[in-house]
Amino acid sequence: MRFNFKIIGNILGLLVIINGVFILLCLPVSIYYKEGGLMPILTSGIVSLLTGLLLWFTTRKTERELRKRDGYLIVTLGWLIMSLFGTLPYLLSGTIPSFTDAFFETISGFTTTGASILNDIESLPKGILFWRSLTQWIGGMGIIVLAVAILPLLGIGGMQLFIAEAPGLKPDKLQPRIAQTAKRLWLIYFALTLAEFVLLKIAGMNYFDAINHALTTMATGGFSTKQESMAFYGPSIQYIVIAFMFLAGTNFTLTYFGFKGNFKKIWQNEEFRVYLILVLLLSFIIGSVIYLVAGSPLEQAFRDALFQVISIVTTTGFVSADYTSWVPFLTILFFMMMFLGGSAGSTAGGVKIVRHVLLLKNGILELKRQIHPAAVIPVRLNKRAVSQDITFNVLAFIMIYLTVTVVSTVVMGMLGNDFLTSLGSVATSLGNIGPGIGSVGPLDNFSAIPSGGKWFLSFLMLLGRLELFTVLILFTPYFWNRS
Amino acid sequence: MRFNFKIIGNILGLLVIINGVFILLCLPVSIYYKEGGLMPILTSGIVSLLTGLLLWFTTRKTERELRKRDGYLIVTLGWLIMSLFGTLPYLLSGTIPSFTDAFFETISGFTTTGASILNDIESLPKGILFWRSLTQWIGGMGIIVLAVAILPLLGIGGMQLFIAEAPGLKPDKLQPRIAQTAKRLWLIYFALTLAEFVLLKIAGMNYFDAINHALTTMATGGFSTKQESMAFYGPSIQYIVIAFMFLAGTNFTLTYFGFKGNFKKIWQNEEFRVYLILVLLLSFIIGSVIYLVAGSPLEQAFRDALFQVISIVTTTGFVSADYTSWVPFLTILFFMMMFLGGSAGSTAGGVKIVRHVLLLKNGILELKRQIHPAAVIPVRLNKRAVSQDITFNVLAFIMIYLTVTVVSTVVMGMLGNDFLTSLGSVATSLGNIGPGIGSVGPLDNFSAIPSGGKWFLSFLMLLGRLELFTVLILFTPYFWNRS
Repeated sequence: MRFNFKIIGNILGLLVIINGVFILLCLPVSIYYKEGGLMPILTSGIVSLLTGLLLWFTTRKTERELRKRDGYLIVTLGWLIMSLFGTLPYLLSGTIPSFTDAFFETISGFTTTGASILNDIESLPKGILFWRSLTQWIGGMGIIVLAVAILPLLGIGGMQLFIAEAPGLKPDKLQPRIAQTAKRLWLIYFALTLAEFVLLKIAGMNYFDAINHALTTMATGGFSTKQESMAFYGPSIQYIVIAFMFLAGTNFTLTYFGFKGNFKKIWQNEEFRVYLILVLLLSFIIGSVIYLVAGSPLEQAFRDALFQVISIVTTTGFVSADYTSWVPFLTILFFMMMFLGGSAGSTAGGVKIVRHVLLLKNGILELKRQIHPAAVIPVRLNKRAVSQDITFNVLAFIMIYLTVTVVSTVVMGMLGNDFLTSLGSVATSLGNIGPGIGSVGPLDNFSAIPSGGKWFLSFLMLLGRLELFTVLILFTPYFWNRS
Repeated sequence: MRFNFKIIGNILGLLVIINGVFILLCLPVSIYYKEGGLMPILTSGIVSLLTGLLLWFTTRKTERELRKRDGYLIVTLGWLIMSLFGTLPYLLSGTIPSFTDAFFETISGFTTTGASILNDIESLPKGILFWRSLTQWIGGMGIIVLAVAILPLLGIGGMQLFIAEAPGLKPDKLQPRIAQTAKRLWLIYFALTLAEFVLLKIAGMNYFDAINHALTTMATGGFSTKQESMAFYGPSIQYIVIAFMFLAGTNFTLTYFGFKGNFKKIWQNEEFRVYLILVLLLSFIIGSVIYLVAGSPLEQAFRDALFQVISIVTTTGFVSADYTSWVPFLTILFFMMMFLGGSAGSTAGGVKIVRHVLLLKNGILELKRQIHPAAVIPVRLNKRAVSQDITFNVLAFIMIYLTVTVVSTVVMGMLGNDFLTSLGSVATSLGNIGPGIGSVGPLDNFSAIPSGGKWFLSFLMLLGRLELFTVLILFTPYFWNRS
């Protein structure tokens, strides 16, 4: 047998169990607020829990080891099966009656994208809204495992670059250390979520909104409990969210060093320096434009700029102002920013800053190689030479990312969307951001996208979240060959 | 002294002399049609000729050899100095009084782009229009030398792939063979221009229009003597132009094999197969859409599709119908096509098919490498393994191409253009095509672009035409270092 289906089934079973447990966590919320959704949540949770347990028990005993090829299947199927069972609360409660819409909303959650088809978020029962926020937070936990444990093992698109920086992580002795690292990073994730919740509460949010926004910020998800998203709230709350979005888009291993007081290590990290400088620079430019051209008050101009820049770059997707309404040039700039992505090893999606840094350095060095064709000139990152294999892999990753963008835009166009909407919906889905441009701009949602388009965008969210290779490899003959 | 300025000056002088001679070739046309422009043309030609002779004579004697670094300077400065002296007929005749506009029109000619700022082409004296067409034809000749002689020597972006296919061209004994190859390809260029002229005349064009369109077709330039471009003419003329645009976008070495009757060699060439199939496939899809959705008559639908597809893919830029007017989806598709480019070793601009083939193959193989990390899996082209250095160089080329597109779109946005116009004008300038999307669509021209934008687009035309590296390298410290 080519694949170890028992172990695959076992892990998927475990995921469905986890899904059920988290759904049941929404029960207290539903009971407290008495807005309905109690029975649907209970039923969904139990169905998920029992199905998971059944799958887990029947595949429990296996002597064979988990292999690389099994890993690829588990990652993609895992996210899919979670998104499938995650639709239950929406469907059973009737809050999202269409399966297409429910699946779109759920996978948008688990991939921490934040694109929504809801036209009136506030009308949903609080228990269901809490589940919606939880899907993102669970997705964020999954991404951390993916980043520190699975992707480096599979050798995906430069993720080795990140593992080299992880605390106590050496490629020789992986298994026990990985669990340790994942736990440490989860602790940071949990601690930051808690901290944001407390601060948001102090700044004036009610308990429910504070916990929900804390969950979706740290996942760089961007689901809000308000139709207006962050524009609903005042400056102090927006500044808190700005700070935590920035943290959520930072390599969690660096945050770990920060907790330990090792700030030198943080500043030595090239990706972090570029991330920080880029965000400040872009915010300054855009803030100046809003202040000078669009005529917003000074503080608001720079707050709006900072918020939107960090929200897009970290792929969170909260909205505090409509970036397509200021000046046409800024629409272009924000669209381009959708291709940046946050830091590797964070919960952010997209291409990731470190890949751009590598790409840019390599591009400049290629000109140098042109002049000195005989010399071997490797790219250096964090003062170490990057192997040509990794550079090659990163270049291929970015090329595939752009090819997928181009082809997908054509597909979205064929499905009847106009140019800007096609471009915007593809960029924001693949980058796991949330708002796009065109008719899926910051003030719109995805409800008007035709059904086929929603399924296609759901696929793109998964593709982007799993760093392309993991999913695409399943479509190649090499993967299924017996060799 | 770092650079051999004498030899650089000598070659630039020669180029200015050639420029003068070609300007004087417009005299007979001007005399025959008696529409004015006679004295300006005479003056321009003599000024150019004398300046060139002066430069050539003062730099005549040099013992030192031409080196690689000198080559880079000569290529960029050569295209610039030609474009500078090429403005004289427009400026002196007052047909294009603004220097910005005149320079834009001239560099659009010499780079075989075909973007125009003219609002009433038919009102210009025929002598001046002839010069306009000649700039493209001269540009095409320059491109042939660049492709067979200069770029492979400099090792630019996979051009080695093309030289391996050139008849009688072996990397060991370059100098004498290169001159021979260039002459052979020029002969084909000249013969095809003549053949198209004859066929266009037979199909009903007058002498003047036939010669002008033949000149600009073979250069994949796209300047027309009609404001309506090819929409002015009937089906038979359009089919002739379709055929010759296709030939102009084909590797001239393959056409040489065709002349020799060696058709097997043509079909064995992977780039040609992809080029042919791609063009037919895209035309079929687009033709079907125009026929079924936009409701054009059957023959016209497929002719319009074929014409526009070949015009964009070969980067010619003639227009027989407005591709932005059919259905929104086609605008997306045509915009994407602007990034294809014709074949290497043709006069076409853009990324080039062979690079895409390499990129796509490498992307798929990268997935295979993911599964077999220990195996060395090279990309194969025309049944030969491509060295990793070249693959790397091609990947870097495409990445830089896209980075330049992105950054330039932002720049055009900052200069006050809307999103689609910014994207379209950048894509069409960098790809040396001609028409774009937005307000520089097929029925529009570039006259309304603000002055700064015209200069910036002029720079992009040069950058694209000289395969990026040649120009960009001048902006790196490595080039100017004494090491």
